[in-house]
Order: sequence, then structure tokens, then C-alpha cells
Amino acid sequence: MSDCIFCKIIAGEIPSFKIYEDDDILAYLDINPFTKGHTLVIPKAHSANLLETGDDRLATVMAGVRKVAAHLKAALPCDGFNIMQNNGAAAGQTVNHLHFHIIPRYRGEELAFKAHPGDMAGLQALCGRLRMA
Amino acid sequence: MSDCIFCKIIAGEIPSFKIYEDDDILAYLDINPFTKGHTLVIPKAHSANLLETGDDRLATVMAGVRKVAAHLKAALPCDGFNIMQNNGAAAGQTVNHLHFHIIPRYRGEELAFKAHPGDMAGLQALCGRLRMA
Repeated sequence: MSDCIFCKIIAGEIPSFKIYEDDDILAYLDINPFTKGHTLVIPKAHSANLLETGDDRLATVMAGVRKVAAHLKAALPCDGFNIMQNNGAAAGQTVNHLHFHIIPRYRGEELAFKAHPGDMAGLQALCGRLRMA
Repeated sequence: MSDCIFCKIIAGEIPSFKIYEDDDILAYLDINPFTKGHTLVIPKAHSANLLETGDDRLATVMAGVRKVAAHLKAALPCDGFNIMQNNGAAAGQTVNHLHFHIIPRYRGEELAFKAHPGDMAGLQALCGRLRMA
């Protein structure tokens, strides 16, 4: 969709800290992360939310979420992670393109759901370290 | 697994407020809900978390999550919902059987991630109203 910020990221019109990409999905670091390594996984084909995404496409996206999460768990490393997906403004959805949050968790840190303005240089370095082959 | 509380719920050894069941999945109300209609969707076959669940089974569970979420959105009705799935104690996972939270959201309520002790009579009545045919 021409006015969708995530479609523009997919098209390369807006830069992102990509860590994984294939024909169907893209994974990149959230620039306002809840925690270190907070990553978004999105389908390349636009759909607004869970209910508007067909089961086949959803299966493809979830296989990608699982693959990227396994990588983050090993590479960061973290002690656990949340998967979160928001539907509707009342649920905190701010971009109407289906996206799954992978939120790494670290023992001793508060289990908060709060965005922090990202440090661009730090995100760039982290992206280089986390990029999947 | 014999010592898994969710496997005991599936087996009927522990009661639950079921709203949907088929050969592969079970959906029931969380007894300590974040919000009204907070529901868990679990696979009947035991796996501990996202990384230990194969992509085929994950696809089946997600199709169920989508189906139940669509029902809750229409039946409650709510204004949106979060999907959340926790992996590891550091991420708040308290039962090591894969489960997806569907957390309905209502305009005007705080977007908090906080459990509230459930009122059993209220949950029973809500369950009767939300049970899928």
C-alpha cells in the first residue's frame, strides 16, 4: 500500500536495521525498543492485522518469527522472549501492517512493555552483529 | 506430560472455562484475566514453547488463534486485542506448555499487562455467552 510505512521499508524507500529477509518476510530492529534486540517480523504482502491475514500467509510469517526468535535467543543471548502482536488502536497498534514483535528478555530486568528512544549508532552496531546469513 | 497443568486441563482432570475445542486445540478463559474475555489458546499436543513447536503445528495453533480472536472481537465485542506468547521465566512464562494469550482491549481502558483475580461466577457466565458452536 502506497501510504504504509512498513511497505515503504520493504520497498527500501525508508531505511531499516534489517536482520533477516527472504521472499515472504522481513525482520528488522525496532527503533524504539522495549529491550535490547527488540525485533519486528512482517510479511512482505500487505495485510492490516491478524484477522485480515489468511491462514497460509500467517503460517509463513510464524515460521519466520520462530526462525528469527531462535536466532536472537542464541545470538544476543537473552534469557527468554515475548511474542506480541497488536490489533487495533485500542490494543496499541500504530502501523496498520501486520507485525509481530519479538521482545528479548533478560533476567534481572523489569518485565515492562515500554518503548525507549533508540540510539541509532548502537542499533547500527547491534544490527551488524545480529544480521542472519 | 503428566505433570503439566495444561495437559491436565486438556484431559479434563482440571476444569476450565472452555470456549472452543477441536481435535488440535483448546481455547478457554484465563482465570486471572488482564481484561474481560482474556483467553488462552493451546495445542493439545504438548510442547514447552515456541522454539520447541514445529512449524506445521504452529500453523494449526495460529489458525485457531485467529478463529477464536475473530469470534471474541465480534461476540464481546471489544475494540481491539493483543496476541501475546511468552517464552521462558524471564519473559513471564509460568506454565511450560505453549499458549497464546488473546487479550481483548476496550477504548478508554488502560493498556496494562496486569492479571486480576477472576470472579468465578462472572467467568462462568461469560463462558456461557462466549462458547463457540
